[in-house]
Amino acid sequence: MSNIPWQERPADSTDVIWRYDANPVVKRDAIPSSNSIFNSAVVEFDGGYAGVFRCDNKAVQMNIFAGFSKDGINWEINHDPISFQAGNTDMIESDYKYDPRVVFIEDRYWITWCNGYHGPTIGIGYTFDFKDFFQCENAFLPFNRNGVLFPEKIDGKYAMLSRPSDNGHTPFGDIYISYSPDMKYWGEHRCVMKVTPFTESAWQCTKIGAGPIPILTEEGWLTFYHGVINTCNGFRYSMGAAILDKDRPDKVLYRSKPYLLSPQTPYECMGDVPNVVFPCAALHSIEEDKVAIYYGAADTVTGLAFGRISEILKFVKENSL
Amino acid sequence: MSNIPWQERPADSTDVIWRYDANPVVKRDAIPSSNSIFNSAVVEFDGGYAGVFRCDNKAVQMNIFAGFSKDGINWEINHDPISFQAGNTDMIESDYKYDPRVVFIEDRYWITWCNGYHGPTIGIGYTFDFKDFFQCENAFLPFNRNGVLFPEKIDGKYAMLSRPSDNGHTPFGDIYISYSPDMKYWGEHRCVMKVTPFTESAWQCTKIGAGPIPILTEEGWLTFYHGVINTCNGFRYSMGAAILDKDRPDKVLYRSKPYLLSPQTPYECMGDVPNVVFPCAALHSIEEDKVAIYYGAADTVTGLAFGRISEILKFVKENSL
Amino acid sequence: MSNIPWQERPADSTDVIWRYDANPVVKRDAIPSSNSIFNSAVVEFDGGYAGVFRCDNKAVQMNIFAGFSKDGINWEINHDPISFQAGNTDMIESDYKYDPRVVFIEDRYWITWCNGYHGPTIGIGYTFDFKDFFQCENAFLPFNRNGVLFPEKIDGKYAMLSRPSDNGHTPFGDIYISYSPDMKYWGEHRCVMKVTPFTESAWQCTKIGAGPIPILTEEGWLTFYHGVINTCNGFRYSMGAAILDKDRPDKVLYRSKPYLLSPQTPYECMGDVPNVVFPCAALHSIEEDKVAIYYGAADTVTGLAFGRISEILKFVKENSL
Amino acid sequence: MSNIPWQERPADSTDVIWRYDANPVVKRDAIPSSNSIFNSAVVEFDGGYAGVFRCDNKAVQMNIFAGFSKDGINWEINHDPISFQAGNTDMIESDYKYDPRVVFIEDRYWITWCNGYHGPTIGIGYTFDFKDFFQCENAFLPFNRNGVLFPEKIDGKYAMLSRPSDNGHTPFGDIYISYSPDMKYWGEHRCVMKVTPFTESAWQCTKIGAGPIPILTEEGWLTFYHGVINTCNGFRYSMGAAILDKDRPDKVLYRSKPYLLSPQTPYECMGDVPNVVFPCAALHSIEEDKVAIYYGAADTVTGLAFGRISEILKFVKENSL
Amino acid sequence: MSNIPWQERPADSTDVIWRYDANPVVKRDAIPSSNSIFNSAVVEFDGGYAGVFRCDNKAVQMNIFAGFSKDGINWEINHDPISFQAGNTDMIESDYKYDPRVVFIEDRYWITWCNGYHGPTIGIGYTFDFKDFFQCENAFLPFNRNGVLFPEKIDGKYAMLSRPSDNGHTPFGDIYISYSPDMKYWGEHRCVMKVTPFTESAWQCTKIGAGPIPILTEEGWLTFYHGVINTCNGFRYSMGAAILDKDRPDKVLYRSKPYLLSPQTPYECMGDVPNVVFPCAALHSIEEDKVAIYYGAADTVTGLAFGRISEILKFVKENSL
Amino acid sequence: MSNIPWQERPADSTDVIWRYDANPVVKRDAIPSSNSIFNSAVVEFDGGYAGVFRCDNKAVQMNIFAGFSKDGINWEINHDPISFQAGNTDMIESDYKYDPRVVFIEDRYWITWCNGYHGPTIGIGYTFDFKDFFQCENAFLPFNRNGVLFPEKIDGKYAMLSRPSDNGHTPFGDIYISYSPDMKYWGEHRCVMKVTPFTESAWQCTKIGAGPIPILTEEGWLTFYHGVINTCNGFRYSMGAAILDKDRPDKVLYRSKPYLLSPQTPYECMGDVPNVVFPCAALHSIEEDKVAIYYGAADTVTGLAFGRISEILKFVKENSL
Repeated sequence: MSNIPWQERPADSTDVIWRYDANPVVKRDAIPSSNSIFNSAVVEFDGGYAGVFRCDNKAVQMNIFAGFSKDGINWEINHDPISFQAGNTDMIESDYKYDPRVVFIEDRYWITWCNGYHGPTIGIGYTFDFKDFFQCENAFLPFNRNGVLFPEKIDGKYAMLSRPSDNGHTPFGDIYISYSPDMKYWGEHRCVMKVTPFTESAWQCTKIGAGPIPILTEEGWLTFYHGVINTCNGFRYSMGAAILDKDRPDKVLYRSKPYLLSPQTPYECMGDVPNVVFPCAALHSIEEDKVAIYYGAADTVTGLAFGRISEILKFVKENSL
Repeated sequence: MSNIPWQERPADSTDVIWRYDANPVVKRDAIPSSNSIFNSAVVEFDGGYAGVFRCDNKAVQMNIFAGFSKDGINWEINHDPISFQAGNTDMIESDYKYDPRVVFIEDRYWITWCNGYHGPTIGIGYTFDFKDFFQCENAFLPFNRNGVLFPEKIDGKYAMLSRPSDNGHTPFGDIYISYSPDMKYWGEHRCVMKVTPFTESAWQCTKIGAGPIPILTEEGWLTFYHGVINTCNGFRYSMGAAILDKDRPDKVLYRSKPYLLSPQTPYECMGDVPNVVFPCAALHSIEEDKVAIYYGAADTVTGLAFGRISEILKFVKENSL
Repeated sequence: MSNIPWQERPADSTDVIWRYDANPVVKRDAIPSSNSIFNSAVVEFDGGYAGVFRCDNKAVQMNIFAGFSKDGINWEINHDPISFQAGNTDMIESDYKYDPRVVFIEDRYWITWCNGYHGPTIGIGYTFDFKDFFQCENAFLPFNRNGVLFPEKIDGKYAMLSRPSDNGHTPFGDIYISYSPDMKYWGEHRCVMKVTPFTESAWQCTKIGAGPIPILTEEGWLTFYHGVINTCNGFRYSMGAAILDKDRPDKVLYRSKPYLLSPQTPYECMGDVPNVVFPCAALHSIEEDKVAIYYGAADTVTGLAFGRISEILKFVKENSL
Repeated sequence: MSNIPWQERPADSTDVIWRYDANPVVKRDAIPSSNSIFNSAVVEFDGGYAGVFRCDNKAVQMNIFAGFSKDGINWEINHDPISFQAGNTDMIESDYKYDPRVVFIEDRYWITWCNGYHGPTIGIGYTFDFKDFFQCENAFLPFNRNGVLFPEKIDGKYAMLSRPSDNGHTPFGDIYISYSPDMKYWGEHRCVMKVTPFTESAWQCTKIGAGPIPILTEEGWLTFYHGVINTCNGFRYSMGAAILDKDRPDKVLYRSKPYLLSPQTPYECMGDVPNVVFPCAALHSIEEDKVAIYYGAADTVTGLAFGRISEILKFVKENSL
Repeated sequence: MSNIPWQERPADSTDVIWRYDANPVVKRDAIPSSNSIFNSAVVEFDGGYAGVFRCDNKAVQMNIFAGFSKDGINWEINHDPISFQAGNTDMIESDYKYDPRVVFIEDRYWITWCNGYHGPTIGIGYTFDFKDFFQCENAFLPFNRNGVLFPEKIDGKYAMLSRPSDNGHTPFGDIYISYSPDMKYWGEHRCVMKVTPFTESAWQCTKIGAGPIPILTEEGWLTFYHGVINTCNGFRYSMGAAILDKDRPDKVLYRSKPYLLSPQTPYECMGDVPNVVFPCAALHSIEEDKVAIYYGAADTVTGLAFGRISEILKFVKENSL
Repeated sequence: MSNIPWQERPADSTDVIWRYDANPVVKRDAIPSSNSIFNSAVVEFDGGYAGVFRCDNKAVQMNIFAGFSKDGINWEINHDPISFQAGNTDMIESDYKYDPRVVFIEDRYWITWCNGYHGPTIGIGYTFDFKDFFQCENAFLPFNRNGVLFPEKIDGKYAMLSRPSDNGHTPFGDIYISYSPDMKYWGEHRCVMKVTPFTESAWQCTKIGAGPIPILTEEGWLTFYHGVINTCNGFRYSMGAAILDKDRPDKVLYRSKPYLLSPQTPYECMGDVPNVVFPCAALHSIEEDKVAIYYGAADTVTGLAFGRISEILKFVKENSL
């Protein structure tokens, strides 16, 4: 039996996703240098959990930090950012790192993040032990964000979701998939899913981006993602889910018309960037029918939310666009 | 004696308008499908009250729903949106409906709302019983918002305030009046009131729009309206009031230089769109000298506020632009 | 036999529309006060032709002027702008007048123009003799441009095409139709045609607007219109044509995918606003199978172009979107 | 021994600046007419303190008001704005006044503020007693904000920091210094410090502006300033500090890479303009090694924060850009 | 009798200003390194004329060059830009120099230009002989353009017109006057004239800026200036004239509602920046009632135009706003 | 001896690049359907020349067409666009094609172009005979433009320059290089050269993009490119040249500070998009020291210009940034 962080749905709730009652699970000042800790990734590791955390320091410089936890709730985050050695390239320039994702494939943990190389693009690295880290070639030309690997090869190739963007507060954004035989050269780019018409599902009508590592279910790849609406007072980020075809993940089988989680609590609505719910990782157990989603809240802290995978799949199928 | 919702002014307040102490009077999740319930209209009906509520669902689709209340405080809102039959036209297309107003004229209840027909314009409908609803020709070409009918004919014609706009987060907006002999063809458009110079009354310097149905008083038509200032962090919506000439309502007799209500509470300052106070309905009794104003708060919930009509008239006259 | 201005197609041309070889037919300084004369309307009158010309003066104030011609080529334009008397209203405010159209219906010549009343809207006036002019109620609320009347009533009502806009260099614009029983109140607004997807017909992908008075043919209403593409160096205005259903003119039967005329000559590409071809009037003879189109060029001068109605109808049908 | 307002650092804090535990020290409704009181200046006066407060009234008109306090905590603010007499000029036009600073030089208290004269520029006035006030020539042409005088002449001339801007929500802004022999004519303009590259210190990468009167220390002029980052949901204002050369204050010796204070409390993150910390005054005692900083919070209320001058100097030197 | 360049008005013209028939008088490649030569200043010197020319090189770097002419028509322009020595300051930084004006006051020729010092501001220099040049303190903080000195002291002080701007393609701009006792410190800033309402004189409704050195006439200071309208295809620059009070030049006595010269020829309408007429200098003889105006055309070449001073004064008075 | 198109430098010119005296070499209506023919590529083929031409049709749809010529001057362009068969992929979607380049590598002619796949990206195809064409996987995710292959493999891999962009009139753009082992997967992305500071070389300060196929010289890869300046009236496109290291082409050895060619003739300054010079191909002979550059002019026609390779190399080295 797993030790995935868990709370049952509150008695007064009928929602398919519910929040951890002691949120935020990681506070903005969890390490001495941090201004904020959010949009972070966790993974099962060594009988407990390891994480790669986005900690912006008090100069508001963005970097990623390793951390460890027995229970996924209480985290020890390193006080120094991850230092990368050369992986499959010597060119490991990085003006900044943010919004990491982590996934175990075959023999190692792969980390992707938004890497500053003449603008944002997708950085790739790996570690075997969360002590030594190796940086590889950037996956794409700038400008790109939200690069998310699939947890296994598809048709013999690595597969990555990403969201081409521009170099600012991008007002557009769709999700694409790309393939690589070797984690160095990428191609076979396909558009997976685009923003919705305003009248059909407004919370995801401005831009969308992949969130946690997709979860393989009997229905296909369960993929949580964020969607953005551009209100007169700025962007609002919510969370939805899609189910992608197991063998052809550029094919969307179902996609939630309603959001699953939107900014409604004070720690989601108030902070460095108000009204942001931004999922980056999901611990899950198919057997126990549980998922625990870590999400950035208001670009300031990290929240945790729970759901039953079977219920989520059912919800997405019954409320599909 | 009426059963208009009412609380006396708090002891520590000298404001001309004061809030209901259990605000928000309608919460965001008052029906199962709703993301938010705000910018809604109520009217006396059948010994109690009926309402037409803007409920955005969790796909953030905008629609209007009928609801009923004995006391104007506790509301039963239908779980399905209003379904319109053909009124004076068969063309009843509607991509979305929002920001309704309701008024009884002669023999029926007229509803106006922002209707999606190739962009926002003013939809018109009517009901006799809040069970069967009939949709008429849109009043105007797009783009328009905040269409508000007068509660009686003026010079033998229906009269409507509205605010021509564009198809986005319009950064301008003045109030006009138009007339119709038959609720089908509209003309005699006149500019009623425009935004103010920034230095004179900044809260209403970006755009203004009519709110509740105008109230006929001995001074003229008491008309609550919203005003918007464009801050570096977005729009802030407040409420003011004007007094229009009884017979020539395109003539502004008085108009409040200070706001009457601005976003100051957490439920007005935090939510889907922070810093919004948006009045859409006002129950009133001239005899009892009371008015109860329903207003959208933060585009998320519905607030209620109270005032004395005589005091408001006095305030507007003494603090007029 | 008519005296419509005419030149045969040049020997080296296969175009469906060809230019007058002595263009511009009206020069920028045709009257002493004018900075530019363009976007103007002409109509058969009194054995010759009358026109209503947009003449911007050297303060770049926009107004409309009557003019007369025996042959449609040589024009005498009044040195003073048209002075309107009260028509069906006393409210004849006008901050400016531009882009007129003229049409004879039943007993008089109706003029529509872009009228400055708290922003651009559609002004309406009439004359019996081009000496005395009467101004009516504006058709619509601001903001609107390119109001074009049909030359006969449809289903007993006046019908007008127009293009809702905003109050600046509007970056959008579709064509709508509205009806009026009396030239005072307008309603039954329908969307007629919208901008095209960029990949299908880019010259008309930003905004479109009706041009000359529609011409009744056996195929339906032949309607010339302008289309705009937004290049990196500004708007480019070209001319296309559509055929609208005779009885239901909100129904588009055919619409030209290619343009019929685009800015290619120095007087169309160089001037106060480069790269503008903007048709406002078309003299025609169904019997002689001729049309002579007057169009503004570069917002500076007036051009003239010719075509065969039968060829144009054939072209639009064979090259329809 | 001074009576500077003071609280010791909370036991659980290691921050170099800490907040007054009863913040906001001045509430938005501290006088009857006020919508908000913020971005205000205080100075030692007559055994206690005097202040010049920015009070926006309920028409959101900006003006400055004198106030008095024994302890710097409890303030009596006049209900009428300061009325200026002619100082070194008869031209004392002022459309609005905001963001005052106050400093004693030689024989009088000088006040600078953002003065509305065809847009924002730097107004200058003086008083001997906080009863009679005299207005001088504006220092500069529009557009300018955040004019801050040094507390003593430098090389025989008055010296002023300022931030050239534009006439709106300026998206840029660097700090300059200018000199005057007579408080009437200004010149010798030098650029002092500019915004930072985003990757080095993002909280101050959009614009910066001087805050309180610089404090002469043994290290140089300790100068608190605000820095702004442009997030996708608007501007966020934080506070940093720089040390300028004593004799050549256009020369920056040290400048804090991390912020010293950023919006983190509800009264800083929620209000008329969310996420603003804007320092305008600093009471200090070199002997007691104390500074008490008054800052606007969320453009709504006034906050107070404390620090040890020696610690701040050390922090800025050790964490310098 | 002077040798001011001159041609009589063409027989077919009634314009108050007419062009030199061999325009452009200075071509874009008049020196080997130049991409364009425009917006340049000339002055009587040593029995002939000297000039300071804006020559952008083929890297499109902006600098100013001295030149000489016997007749004002044929110019020898130095191949190297002016090299300035320290004048009343050692701080003579300059990222670029453009749009010079030249005027003789008392004992020397003063040059002002748009000087690059952390953005555009007004540079000041002087020469006695057009061989040795001395640079002084910048007049103002950035951002400013079009600094134009009066040819004599007013009330004992130097006086300069200028146009505060921003750091880009400024979409606003009014003319101010400032005074200096010593060409080092400036103050007493007054607004002189602002842009016009669009409906009154649209060619000058977006921004205006002073052009040649004002000419003292019996009516007051005859001041040519440029005005800009923002069309949908960019800015169009025309030339107008104002008459300022002799003793109080911040007081506008008359100001031309129509333009005097607008872009109408190919060399004004086609070039690096189409549709620009930008006057920077005016040779004149009150006795001979002549003025010869040098103006930049299309930001590419230099044009020359002529007029009779008496006629211009009459025109401005009779066609005043 | 080659038959490269050629004219000697005109006697009155000292420019390093000079124009063909019968420009435009390809007119806008060279095929019946075309609105414009520009930004096109040519290559030696079969004893003469083949080309791939961008022909926008009269619906302003963008596509590429094959053409042939004996002399490089007189061209026969196919009337139908190129029809691609599946190359290394079945996914050959293309909403539009524009701005082609052509290069022979090893055994075939490779074509790259801006391919419409959910926005602009780099399309790749090949042909052996200019009759049958095969389309491969797009090189990159959108958004990208100006993909230009090197004419030989570098370190065993294909190499391509490109310019990441956004999905509109991109206001930024730098040149990158990417490598591929197989023309299917791409990686090892490096920034090659960026826009210049405005003060150093303004014609290339907004965006830059590779032009013709790089030419291997003894100095390195001679690479012509376009640079853009953003004037107040839109973008102006000029041409420069850089020399890249032979073995490490991401290393810039020299780069021209002045432009080599800028829009100066009527056919470059007037047309569908004024002020554009956009090079896409260069025929050359190292032996004869000749280069003939084909460039789009005003987005309307195709121009031709000549130069001596040795002179160009010398010029770039002597005038390097």
